[in-house]
Amino acid sequence: MNKTLSVLFALLVFGGGVAAPNAFAQKPAGKNSKQEALLNTDIEFAKASVGTSAAEAFAMYLADDSMQLPAGGNPIVGKQAILAGMGSGYVLSWEPKKAEVAKSGELGWTWGTFELHTKDAEGKPVVRYGKYVNIWRKQKDGAWKVILDMGNASPAPTAP
Amino acid sequence: MNKTLSVLFALLVFGGGVAAPNAFAQKPAGKNSKQEALLNTDIEFAKASVGTSAAEAFAMYLADDSMQLPAGGNPIVGKQAILAGMGSGYVLSWEPKKAEVAKSGELGWTWGTFELHTKDAEGKPVVRYGKYVNIWRKQKDGAWKVILDMGNASPAPTAP
Repeated sequence: MNKTLSVLFALLVFGGGVAAPNAFAQKPAGKNSKQEALLNTDIEFAKASVGTSAAEAFAMYLADDSMQLPAGGNPIVGKQAILAGMGSGYVLSWEPKKAEVAKSGELGWTWGTFELHTKDAEGKPVVRYGKYVNIWRKQKDGAWKVILDMGNASPAPTAP
Repeated sequence: MNKTLSVLFALLVFGGGVAAPNAFAQKPAGKNSKQEALLNTDIEFAKASVGTSAAEAFAMYLADDSMQLPAGGNPIVGKQAILAGMGSGYVLSWEPKKAEVAKSGELGWTWGTFELHTKDAEGKPVVRYGKYVNIWRKQKDGAWKVILDMGNASPAPTAP
């Protein structure tokens, strides 16, 4: 049974609606699935930051030889040095927007927007907005780790 | 004449000193030469910025689908939109520090430090310091072009 017949068969048997969208949404494995895997890794990284803490999430996802280029600061080289500078008492959440992976599959990058939820000197909640680029390298065990993390400020979003 | 004999011949004829260092500095082609080619492209990009203007250099080195993530601003998508926002009357110089290229050779990144030489409201020269990441994609004609440009501020360097 070829693909078209399979879809027609599914439509007949399951009444359309359910089977058809999945059948048409199937994507070929390859470039797109690599990008999706890296994007999903960044999404899991962001979930870990909100679910535990930014420092714990960075401990999980930074490569040992990672470098951070912090806004207003000098470059920080090495996972341990980056973690030592992260502090606590804030929530860092982010939304990955795009991932790209080299054809060879070992180098990629993501970018997205972030929100830093903290408190001002009077204890009032404040939110700082920004955007980031992460460069990722696939490790020997197949896990993607961040080798470079850079962020900068964005204007507060305007009301919809 | 094999390579060793060539070097010995050069040493005899030209008296050493000149020929020997170059002969021994030869590096194998491959990963390192890819990184060096991209680093050199970023160095040429920086030279063009100082030699002409930042906007003219960006016009030469940005991919059409480039994106800029400017400090304090929202993402700017597309070469023409980036160029339209660049203005004039300043000198942007930078020093590339490192390049990495994927094994497949079509995707890479560089980072470095920059200086923005401008004038304050009273016409007095001021320098702003920062660092940047550029992500590069090799085009169909073999030329490296910037697909993502991001920068943020650094403290002024301390006196040596």
